[in-house]
Amino acid sequence: MSELAKNAANYRALTPLDFLVWASRAYPRKTAVIDGERRFTYSEFAARCRRLASALAGQGIVRGDTVAVLAPNIPATLEAHYGVPMLGAVLNALNIRLDAASIAFILGHGGAKILIVDAEFASVARAALEAMTGPRPMVVEVTEPGTGLAVGEMDYEELLGAGDPAFVWTPPSDEWQSLALNYTSGTTGDPKGVVYHHRGAFLNALANAMTFGLTARSVYLWTLPMFHCNGWSYPWAVTAVGGTHVCLRRIDPVAVLDLIERHSVTHFCAAPIILNMLMHAEGARDKRFSHRVQVATGGAAPPSTVIAAMEGMGIEVTHLYGLTESYGPATVCLPQEDWQDKPLAERAGLMARQGLPHFAVPEMMVADSETLAPVPADGATIGELVFRGHTLMKGYLANPKATDAAFAGGWFHSGDLAVQHPDGYVEIKDRAKDIIISGGENISSLEVEEVLYRHPSVLEAAVVARPDATWGETPCAFIALKPGIPIPDANEIIGFCRQNLAHFKCPRTVVFGELPKTATGKIQKFTLRQQAGEL
Amino acid sequence: MSELAKNAANYRALTPLDFLVWASRAYPRKTAVIDGERRFTYSEFAARCRRLASALAGQGIVRGDTVAVLAPNIPATLEAHYGVPMLGAVLNALNIRLDAASIAFILGHGGAKILIVDAEFASVARAALEAMTGPRPMVVEVTEPGTGLAVGEMDYEELLGAGDPAFVWTPPSDEWQSLALNYTSGTTGDPKGVVYHHRGAFLNALANAMTFGLTARSVYLWTLPMFHCNGWSYPWAVTAVGGTHVCLRRIDPVAVLDLIERHSVTHFCAAPIILNMLMHAEGARDKRFSHRVQVATGGAAPPSTVIAAMEGMGIEVTHLYGLTESYGPATVCLPQEDWQDKPLAERAGLMARQGLPHFAVPEMMVADSETLAPVPADGATIGELVFRGHTLMKGYLANPKATDAAFAGGWFHSGDLAVQHPDGYVEIKDRAKDIIISGGENISSLEVEEVLYRHPSVLEAAVVARPDATWGETPCAFIALKPGIPIPDANEIIGFCRQNLAHFKCPRTVVFGELPKTATGKIQKFTLRQQAGEL
Repeated sequence: MSELAKNAANYRALTPLDFLVWASRAYPRKTAVIDGERRFTYSEFAARCRRLASALAGQGIVRGDTVAVLAPNIPATLEAHYGVPMLGAVLNALNIRLDAASIAFILGHGGAKILIVDAEFASVARAALEAMTGPRPMVVEVTEPGTGLAVGEMDYEELLGAGDPAFVWTPPSDEWQSLALNYTSGTTGDPKGVVYHHRGAFLNALANAMTFGLTARSVYLWTLPMFHCNGWSYPWAVTAVGGTHVCLRRIDPVAVLDLIERHSVTHFCAAPIILNMLMHAEGARDKRFSHRVQVATGGAAPPSTVIAAMEGMGIEVTHLYGLTESYGPATVCLPQEDWQDKPLAERAGLMARQGLPHFAVPEMMVADSETLAPVPADGATIGELVFRGHTLMKGYLANPKATDAAFAGGWFHSGDLAVQHPDGYVEIKDRAKDIIISGGENISSLEVEEVLYRHPSVLEAAVVARPDATWGETPCAFIALKPGIPIPDANEIIGFCRQNLAHFKCPRTVVFGELPKTATGKIQKFTLRQQAGEL
Repeated sequence: MSELAKNAANYRALTPLDFLVWASRAYPRKTAVIDGERRFTYSEFAARCRRLASALAGQGIVRGDTVAVLAPNIPATLEAHYGVPMLGAVLNALNIRLDAASIAFILGHGGAKILIVDAEFASVARAALEAMTGPRPMVVEVTEPGTGLAVGEMDYEELLGAGDPAFVWTPPSDEWQSLALNYTSGTTGDPKGVVYHHRGAFLNALANAMTFGLTARSVYLWTLPMFHCNGWSYPWAVTAVGGTHVCLRRIDPVAVLDLIERHSVTHFCAAPIILNMLMHAEGARDKRFSHRVQVATGGAAPPSTVIAAMEGMGIEVTHLYGLTESYGPATVCLPQEDWQDKPLAERAGLMARQGLPHFAVPEMMVADSETLAPVPADGATIGELVFRGHTLMKGYLANPKATDAAFAGGWFHSGDLAVQHPDGYVEIKDRAKDIIISGGENISSLEVEEVLYRHPSVLEAAVVARPDATWGETPCAFIALKPGIPIPDANEIIGFCRQNLAHFKCPRTVVFGELPKTATGKIQKFTLRQQAGEL
């Protein structure tokens, strides 16, 4: 049957751009995008994306060029997820919390020809442009109506106005074609540029839509930044089902709860720390949504207190895990039928695990990083979490050494250390570099942090290794307390840990104070490790 | 970014076989298959499929070989959808209603090495094997426990018993690799063998799962034959979400309603004719399911009476359309929000349309068959429905002429004549070819006419569809007799057909008289169709 070759009718490159074509044909009059008081139907949304593509083409953007965006979750960012790749160009969504130097590095490294910047980030953009040594991108600015340009050479809406709403674009002929470029906030050295392809974005969007149960009736609130792994593919996933995108410029817990109520939001994604903010928001205690709301959380395991508070509000929690290199979520802690009757503490323990890969990542192992021999699924033996599948990056841009290391032995190395439980679910114990080795024993800093988070006074906790003459390393805990809580005795904290952990795992040192964070809101363990070394 | 090549970690061929791997890892203890009193968990189901693959390999089956199945919707048929392609072999599921001559032709044309046959179809299988002129397949028989082999050389469960439940199979390296072979009841001459590939089955399964809203909580009742376009990809789609398959040997309306109740069936597929049987089943009038039940229907538009009756029972109706060449459903009549408040008659009119393609078929047109110029979307201008996408066949096996014709101009020609409405929804107005659809089965009028022409008294014959309350349509034969021949008994003609055709293909009505002709001497089927409608 080998004579039956591909032809124009039976073969087409997979691309998430087709989702917009589909949605604008299926639901032309339906609200695609809500942004404050603005509404765009799918017909209007698609026309704006075609205008953007047309206008970018007019500015000389062609296949393979990079277009960067520095903006929060506003329509322009969403539109760039379609308008840019419609030209075969590559979208580089920048983290709005980055400093000017990092932005300058990324713009230079990614070779952005155009930068679309939101007025709110004009000054950091200006500083970044000034810091650039190589060619600078042309700047398009998203402004508030009636205000002038702060940094841009052109207004975004004017650019769109110059574009053709009926622009005919050419879908990619190769589904391996680059679609997006996302820089990881490397803990050491320069950020690495993760490259996505059209096929992977198409499949990850479907995997997410199915895993999260998106349908045409779904209303998705944009709490998760679109610059994080292209918003875990949701710019494409929500469109793939003809759902509604609700834009959100910044996270204000009270406003989030209000938007969920007002627009009957059915789905959103947020790190546990955001859920923590929601549960402590004004009025949250008495809140109970009458419609079904689901949240996918990741970046850290949702603590039982968060799960309980969300469920109290009528919000179902799903725990996902992934990396920039895996287009966002690669695994999901699939709830099993018999979990629902278990007590909260036990259920939270089960839900804290990273779980199983979704269907777009068919192969996962916890294995020896070097030999790639799988460790036993005993819930105890630690190995590295490695993957194979449809939604792993093409590689790092212009960084063959890092690319080769990430794909060593034909598996993608996550750099996360995990155990596999007898039910197949994996549980991350630590980043490879965050493990503490004390007296020859491996101590998972996450495990210790989990206990610390259960202490009533603790708001945030981070545990790192402190060099020790006797033990090699000992756990050192950095703790931010809840507002208004007086600084407790360190021994009280250590004692609490001893009641809940093997003694050798308990912190020997406790430091109270605010925790240093990265631009993405991650606690800077690197800095804490330095501090611990100097104690 | 072109240096970022595919590697073993980031590229893998798409295959629906991975769904079984996924489901047996995610839900090992969950019920995958219900068959009467038998239950298989996903772990057991996967082991049975691996046993089948291993045992078939032991019988010499290798990549590219064909394995045929002649069986109703029993576990063996479901298992063949995995066990056969696990070897890179091609599954040829045969229509159990075919006559021996057709089966013999297909087994020969498809080159089946092994035929798995259910005991109920032993005699037609025996006749088919005897009628074969070329090499015959080895026969494996699915028997009832305690009964001997009627036609097979080996018992199916014994074959499985000899297989290795831990058999390690190799996923396809090429997603274009052939997966299945499905014969259409061709309108002229011999049946054509439609070839599917792994990529298309993977994507059609996902498109169906999403279109129909399948989740891990879904329970799917197998009313739709698995030999129809591989059951519209549901053997793979239901598994892709970890749902439960409920097998069904034959359609008994009372039993179907009972199974829906007993197993909390959430989804099933059935032609309107089957729904018609359900609504007239004993006890159906007072039936109202307390859980949500959805039916996808196709083959003909669901009449308003059927929609009303189903909704009365608590069953939501979705209208799908597709062909064997499109892996089953290619379009869906997506319900729009504002339809639900419309009166039934209007809603039924809207729902009678074939609708819009799902996301795996990104391009659809109603166009001039020759020039491929689209017709206006005015709901009136008729053109041919043509498609481009991910889920259109590789082509017809060993039939380059038919393949080329089907893909003329780089579009797949459905052969169906349709209009496109201003909302983009298409509606089929007529078959380009004179197909009769009776009880969900396609009957070629030309094939019946060919037999009629063999009758010694027949001068001219034309067969058209006659509307029928039970079957949807039945074949109605118009016959002009040879000069001097007295008008025979209609039953004599029908009896003659029965000796030469599958029973369901034989005319139910026979009308004698002169046949209306066009100026060029062509029989005016259009006129005869009108006459048949008035009988």
